[in-house]
Amino acid sequence: MTRVFNFSAGPAVLPVPVLEQVRDELLDWRGGGMSVMEMSHRDKDFMSIAAEAEQDLRALLAIPANYKVLFMQGGATAQFAAVPLNLLRGKASADYIVNGAWGVKAAKECTKYGQANIAAQASPFNHIPARETWRLDPNAAYVHYTPNETIEGVEFGAVPDVGSVPLVADFSSTFLSRPLDVSKFGLIYAGAQKNAGPAGLTFVVVREDLLGQCLPAAPTIFDYKVVADNDSMLNTPSCFAWYVSGLVFKWLQREGGLAEIGRRNERKAALLYDCIDSTPLYHNPVATADRSWMNIVFTLADAALDAEFLEGAAKAGLPGLKGHRVVGGMRASLYNAMPEAGVIALVEYMKAFARSHG
Amino acid sequence: MTRVFNFSAGPAVLPVPVLEQVRDELLDWRGGGMSVMEMSHRDKDFMSIAAEAEQDLRALLAIPANYKVLFMQGGATAQFAAVPLNLLRGKASADYIVNGAWGVKAAKECTKYGQANIAAQASPFNHIPARETWRLDPNAAYVHYTPNETIEGVEFGAVPDVGSVPLVADFSSTFLSRPLDVSKFGLIYAGAQKNAGPAGLTFVVVREDLLGQCLPAAPTIFDYKVVADNDSMLNTPSCFAWYVSGLVFKWLQREGGLAEIGRRNERKAALLYDCIDSTPLYHNPVATADRSWMNIVFTLADAALDAEFLEGAAKAGLPGLKGHRVVGGMRASLYNAMPEAGVIALVEYMKAFARSHG
Repeated sequence: MTRVFNFSAGPAVLPVPVLEQVRDELLDWRGGGMSVMEMSHRDKDFMSIAAEAEQDLRALLAIPANYKVLFMQGGATAQFAAVPLNLLRGKASADYIVNGAWGVKAAKECTKYGQANIAAQASPFNHIPARETWRLDPNAAYVHYTPNETIEGVEFGAVPDVGSVPLVADFSSTFLSRPLDVSKFGLIYAGAQKNAGPAGLTFVVVREDLLGQCLPAAPTIFDYKVVADNDSMLNTPSCFAWYVSGLVFKWLQREGGLAEIGRRNERKAALLYDCIDSTPLYHNPVATADRSWMNIVFTLADAALDAEFLEGAAKAGLPGLKGHRVVGGMRASLYNAMPEAGVIALVEYMKAFARSHG
Repeated sequence: MTRVFNFSAGPAVLPVPVLEQVRDELLDWRGGGMSVMEMSHRDKDFMSIAAEAEQDLRALLAIPANYKVLFMQGGATAQFAAVPLNLLRGKASADYIVNGAWGVKAAKECTKYGQANIAAQASPFNHIPARETWRLDPNAAYVHYTPNETIEGVEFGAVPDVGSVPLVADFSSTFLSRPLDVSKFGLIYAGAQKNAGPAGLTFVVVREDLLGQCLPAAPTIFDYKVVADNDSMLNTPSCFAWYVSGLVFKWLQREGGLAEIGRRNERKAALLYDCIDSTPLYHNPVATADRSWMNIVFTLADAALDAEFLEGAAKAGLPGLKGHRVVGGMRASLYNAMPEAGVIALVEYMKAFARSHG
């Protein structure tokens, strides 16, 4: 078996030791004679897997005690609805900072339930609007932003200060990629399928005082308070994804935690941006300060070479580089589980391709 | 490794050949160098896995061409909301036939969006109300029922005739357990985690003419039309569960399809009911004609023996027999993947236990 370096934007590369453990205990978890996939979610074995995953996630992110951790389904797209349904709390509007395609979708879904005030919007989506230009409403129910825009490769380097209005963030593609001060947020959410596990699981970390005012029109499984009161087991959760994510959390701990992971991610991104910036064939359109560590987009000077570039990359064991259909070009996703060796292999391929197409 | 006979009600036993295949290709699906968990849902490999699963499901159930098959998230509990959100279509009410705890929950969730008319309700939940007692409203948006109540072990032997009003059914715990005439339904849905795969995936089979009138308050991921128009990939689906379910569908085909599976399930259930009925220590409270093939509940004549019974069963490699907390007693779930050998082992254990506690 030859493993490739998979640059897919999500679902995405997972740590090999995690996959090996999943494989090794697939038919028999710790001698119990059944797969984790076959365990009742009410069984003490699965309850221990679930509780340990939450505990490890809390430790990794140093989540304060007054925050609930929820394990939900439906991805960030479900949260685009769940956030206004739960957090509008009788207020007329919420503020949205939009610097990419996912922010657009989040704001649009909010309009089903209340007004989405676009407090700032980048145009084009190649930078983050300067903080002093944001038209924030002090009466907004919350301020929503997207720390990392997966499609355009634009990332916030720091958490913005929005005063006392609860800050809400879609961390899907940069979850656990570096340390985070959770206490600055009212709520963060993230689909698992980028940096934390298989698709089908969504993490929600929410400050307790924001719970309990969900709109009655919300499906019960969207009511954070109900989900929290039932320890994310109001109904059968996405058990297997929960288990695999728990193994990813253990792996992150063994690798040194988020401070070390953040250093690695910064270094990996720098390797690739250096190659792009120093090679005339490649171009990244994002403002330098706002470049993503996770999703690095680039175009070739001649788009007619795209197909050949992608084909050669796939043959070299570097699949998943095709950019999102909306923006075209290339995208290399360098999530936590992408080793530095993968980035080096990509840079070598890109340099060789540039030399042979100079 | 010693596999047990797992009688859990869900998540539940999966076919060993399926688990073995999942294990064998866990790090490398067909030489591509990555796990199915790591594949982009837009990748051609995953698209082929997804399409093949749908095709196999259509073949197993002989789903007519004018029905859409959707792969959603959130389990039956999400569908309790999605059904009225999509199918009320401007009508004031829907009819609910209630013969167990899940039917109660389905009807209750409907009241968020319209009136749930309880057209029939069993009391207690140990039988199905006689068809001639149902007070059906010819103007109802749909008639909802639960073909198999997982907690009480009550199952419809045949599909009820409700005239021209669309029939909607929560098949979660009896999905693919025997042949089904899908054309009798407006919509059927089922969580995967009983008879078809890991938790985190929900199947919806819906007649096309019922699509397109979703209430605007519905989260977009609940809108069947939008999900159908996007081939269940509006956002990242529960990819790995989709893949495993596809392997279960292949296994069902190899085993002879639903007619053969139905014969086996009937035989397995008869073995256990015979033991219960012929042993004074055990009692099943369900009307004979309405007894479930999938979830067989029984009590011990002396509840003080429950703990010893369960402990002995677990030691004998027969876990998962504890009844739902609402009804107590025991429950043996005999899903498709439970081999007859498992039922025989259970019957032997029960007879021996009865002899030593006579």
